[in-house]
Amino acid sequence: MTDQQKTHTGKIFLFPVPLNDGDINAVLPSYNIALIKNIKVFVVENIRSARRFLKKCDRTIDIDTLTFFTLNEHTLQQDIPQMLEPAFEGKDIGVISEAGCPAIADPGADIVALAQRKGIEVIPLVGPSSILMGLMGSGFNGQSFAFAGYLPVDASTRAARLKEMERRINREHQTQIFIETPYRNNRLIQELCTSLPSSMLLCVASDITGAKQSIITRSIADWKKAAFDYSHTPTIFLLFN
Amino acid sequence: MTDQQKTHTGKIFLFPVPLNDGDINAVLPSYNIALIKNIKVFVVENIRSARRFLKKCDRTIDIDTLTFFTLNEHTLQQDIPQMLEPAFEGKDIGVISEAGCPAIADPGADIVALAQRKGIEVIPLVGPSSILMGLMGSGFNGQSFAFAGYLPVDASTRAARLKEMERRINREHQTQIFIETPYRNNRLIQELCTSLPSSMLLCVASDITGAKQSIITRSIADWKKAAFDYSHTPTIFLLFN
Repeated sequence: MTDQQKTHTGKIFLFPVPLNDGDINAVLPSYNIALIKNIKVFVVENIRSARRFLKKCDRTIDIDTLTFFTLNEHTLQQDIPQMLEPAFEGKDIGVISEAGCPAIADPGADIVALAQRKGIEVIPLVGPSSILMGLMGSGFNGQSFAFAGYLPVDASTRAARLKEMERRINREHQTQIFIETPYRNNRLIQELCTSLPSSMLLCVASDITGAKQSIITRSIADWKKAAFDYSHTPTIFLLFN
Repeated sequence: MTDQQKTHTGKIFLFPVPLNDGDINAVLPSYNIALIKNIKVFVVENIRSARRFLKKCDRTIDIDTLTFFTLNEHTLQQDIPQMLEPAFEGKDIGVISEAGCPAIADPGADIVALAQRKGIEVIPLVGPSSILMGLMGSGFNGQSFAFAGYLPVDASTRAARLKEMERRINREHQTQIFIETPYRNNRLIQELCTSLPSSMLLCVASDITGAKQSIITRSIADWKKAAFDYSHTPTIFLLFN
């Protein structure tokens, strides 16, 4: 690729989205908002929520002049390359997920991987991540940690996974992080209370950056005695010793 | 603890710090800056750089009226509890690290852990994390990933660790993330080129949010042929298949 061409290739900007309905200036740098106003092509997980986010960034954005491509779990692999075409016409592309950071626990990673293969410059931007903020607030080891997404649903695979997490906490001092669907949060905590050693520490980080934010680290023994209800809030779970 | 007392206990705010000398509005929400102006007690990794950061947030902050506690690798465990005393006098406490997010790959985690044990509310704030931004930009799996800090120095332990990472990439589809001291970055890439399969993907994410930002994903085969020099920039390394 010559320098001439390079100058004319658009870039991919990865825009984090607030985790809830609060003030966007609490969770996004003003730079992101200045930047997003100049982008005309977007790859989004959900068009409706992306439009709402853009309107929140700046009410004067003319949504009807923008191009949207949908990238979610239903997108066919063969439909992804065309989403990058605008970059080769010199247009910057914005990637917007439903909530949080694009490409972290969401489908955006596919388009970033393709952009990397095609030599398109990728620019991640700062924004809220419940994984990272949960880890910061937990007091657990931030020098070594692993995020595993959802635990397996099958009971025996799930039990084996928890055992493996316990081993990695003890042998590698690696903080273990995972998520669950809100309506199953309470049941998960009960399950952790019965299957983990009572001295192990569990941090439950709920509604991060939201009005009901609560980040609580307790031993399993203390969680057993605690009253809680996390069945309606997005929550992240962290384990350590 | 009664509600009365709860109202009067200060909180611990975790303030991320820019990774380099650029505009703070590019990497921090304006909310953080509004918040930091009202805090009078700080736990910091390095007083000089914390003062510089505070002055950058707002030149009118009167640094001499603030209380600073230093928390770094030389701090004795027994000296940490007193740093939380101001919270019990109703004062909020700000935690500021050298660069990036407090408690992620830095000593801040100790004071957060103690705050959690003492029931003090911990509030993580949004800011730049080279780990998370490197992962976003890599195109690698963001549903499962592990950060391991520095690789072991000892040659055979180090080789074993790389083998284990390779296994976790293949069996668990877990992205592997680690760091190195800048002057050793080039040597590390050469080492990865000789010890990893040529089809494996290595992302080198350097000077994140800085003027020389570069996030490049290539196969080991392609890194072998590439010219590079990362010896002067903070860099993060990611592996995936």
